[in-house]
Amino acid sequence: MAADRLKKNGVYDQVVKAFGKRKFVEFGGIEPNPRFETCLKAVALAKKKKVDFLLSVGGGSVLDATKFIAAAIRFRGKDPWDILRTMGGCVKAAVPLGAILTLPATGSEMNCFSVISREKTQEKLHFGSPKVFPQFSILDPEATYSLPRAQVRNGIVDAFAHVMEQYMTRDNRTHLQDRQAEAILKTLVDDADKILAERPDYDSRATWMWCCTQALNGTIACGCVEDWSTHMIGHELTAFFGIDHGQSLAVVMPAVWKHQKQHKKAKLAQYARRVWHVTSGSIDEQADAAIDKTIAFFNSIGMPTRLDAYRITGADIHKVVDRFAERGTVLGENQNITSKEIEQILRLCL
Amino acid sequence: MAADRLKKNGVYDQVVKAFGKRKFVEFGGIEPNPRFETCLKAVALAKKKKVDFLLSVGGGSVLDATKFIAAAIRFRGKDPWDILRTMGGCVKAAVPLGAILTLPATGSEMNCFSVISREKTQEKLHFGSPKVFPQFSILDPEATYSLPRAQVRNGIVDAFAHVMEQYMTRDNRTHLQDRQAEAILKTLVDDADKILAERPDYDSRATWMWCCTQALNGTIACGCVEDWSTHMIGHELTAFFGIDHGQSLAVVMPAVWKHQKQHKKAKLAQYARRVWHVTSGSIDEQADAAIDKTIAFFNSIGMPTRLDAYRITGADIHKVVDRFAERGTVLGENQNITSKEIEQILRLCL
Repeated sequence: MAADRLKKNGVYDQVVKAFGKRKFVEFGGIEPNPRFETCLKAVALAKKKKVDFLLSVGGGSVLDATKFIAAAIRFRGKDPWDILRTMGGCVKAAVPLGAILTLPATGSEMNCFSVISREKTQEKLHFGSPKVFPQFSILDPEATYSLPRAQVRNGIVDAFAHVMEQYMTRDNRTHLQDRQAEAILKTLVDDADKILAERPDYDSRATWMWCCTQALNGTIACGCVEDWSTHMIGHELTAFFGIDHGQSLAVVMPAVWKHQKQHKKAKLAQYARRVWHVTSGSIDEQADAAIDKTIAFFNSIGMPTRLDAYRITGADIHKVVDRFAERGTVLGENQNITSKEIEQILRLCL
Repeated sequence: MAADRLKKNGVYDQVVKAFGKRKFVEFGGIEPNPRFETCLKAVALAKKKKVDFLLSVGGGSVLDATKFIAAAIRFRGKDPWDILRTMGGCVKAAVPLGAILTLPATGSEMNCFSVISREKTQEKLHFGSPKVFPQFSILDPEATYSLPRAQVRNGIVDAFAHVMEQYMTRDNRTHLQDRQAEAILKTLVDDADKILAERPDYDSRATWMWCCTQALNGTIACGCVEDWSTHMIGHELTAFFGIDHGQSLAVVMPAVWKHQKQHKKAKLAQYARRVWHVTSGSIDEQADAAIDKTIAFFNSIGMPTRLDAYRITGADIHKVVDRFAERGTVLGENQNITSKEIEQILRLCL
């Protein structure tokens, strides 16, 4: 989160005032898709100053970085990258942390997950640990008023995609969780224009923030098999080509659905009926309508759904495919997406 | 919860086995609408045996009693009834507690509330405190298989009414919370027959349990003005006439809506459209349809919506009215329901 914006929207002053006479050390300059290398600087500073509480002030990137920093300060091994390599398995302790969230999107304010990128190796990995669950999170809708429209758009798509990674799989016989997921999707669809309005209003921004939180706080995932292949493929597009996280999701998700339609079609059709009020057609046709409606929704808020919008071509995608091949990655709720299928999916994004 | 049922359905043995070599003291005999007098016996036993953790095994009544017992053990004042009189305000500490829930309904497993009745004065009051929030709650759908059909029906209506007390007020500009509330209502309506089926199935019972929890864990109430007049009036019907909590709600709720239609009609109409797919008619007509559909739903699962089903007549209701008049109670989200209006509402229930 740009420190400039925090000063401009008044959040910086509010935080300093709230600290009162308590001592604090500032660390700025955490970038979007927060970098391992930057985090290590913060770890060194925190250790030197014997920091005993971390306060994240900013968006999901700052908070994800703060979670990693919190775990890395207490890490007793040789290489803190192991925190990511073990997906948090090696995290035994962390400095307690709180969050003041100024950009909703990631849901990081109410979960124990964090995504960190490594510049040197162009990797983007995640970890999770109950030790880095925020002690508190403060979400003030007014703090989002100064956000550029592109970041608001990213945040809407991010929340939408988070819901979908948990929902758009198969019939899990989780009737309530399905409807809770659809509640978030429907709210985002209904309110997107108001959330993006040039003159922001409190209620729409509050609704957006709350959608983002509820999308990834674990509630809708209870009892569900999850997908997350869109995120895994999207992370690599961000790592290699620098496109925003939200942008990568809008491109990859419809392609994953097209590729996996045979497995996902019952759920796609349910989504078409309940969120888009599609009432006619076969299951196959309803599933197609679900994909079309979603693409149209993203495009209607100005979000591209093709890689060519970012000048990424067929010649570029081998980088991503090769990495998955090297890692031997297998993705999707059916564990049927290997590097070969990832290439097919990326070709559907061109 | 009848100890008999716990022995029959195997939960008792599971719990004893899980205790292993740990020492425990048993206290049985907590009745539905748990009584202050019974709780005090448990408090005396727990103090004598220096109990440092309470495990509730049973339904919401046992858990509510356990919460009160937990607070009363640590209560330093003269009269533990003050815990209820202050609605929990005087609770400074409590023995930690956990729950094994065998009858879903109250949502008590994921909130800090408790309702206790006093035999001597025929009172039924509630309290709340973060100190009595369960450390854990275990909900096993199979533990509900041995429930009598009447208790399952009560539990469905209870969860439905809990949602309504938070939802059926006015436009709170809480778009996501509205849809989350509707998600629970829709799921209960869709699955009621399966939940009540003679041959219980795991998924339906799991869905029911989860609906009950989500109905009263605080999520759908965020940012909403709440009502709770149905519960307050229903509690007195239970206290005076011994009808089940769920039964009292099914009688009172439609009457409160009829009486308060002018204030609630926009929300009633929204509910008619979204949960019952009512697509035509004026707002007034949609609101009427909402009330009719709800009564028909309750009746369809065998739940009466009139006091005469319990042989309570016009001559009986003055007891309830007089008590509210004595207390000077004012109910409802608009604080416009005094004993006079309560009498009118009860006449609509005859």
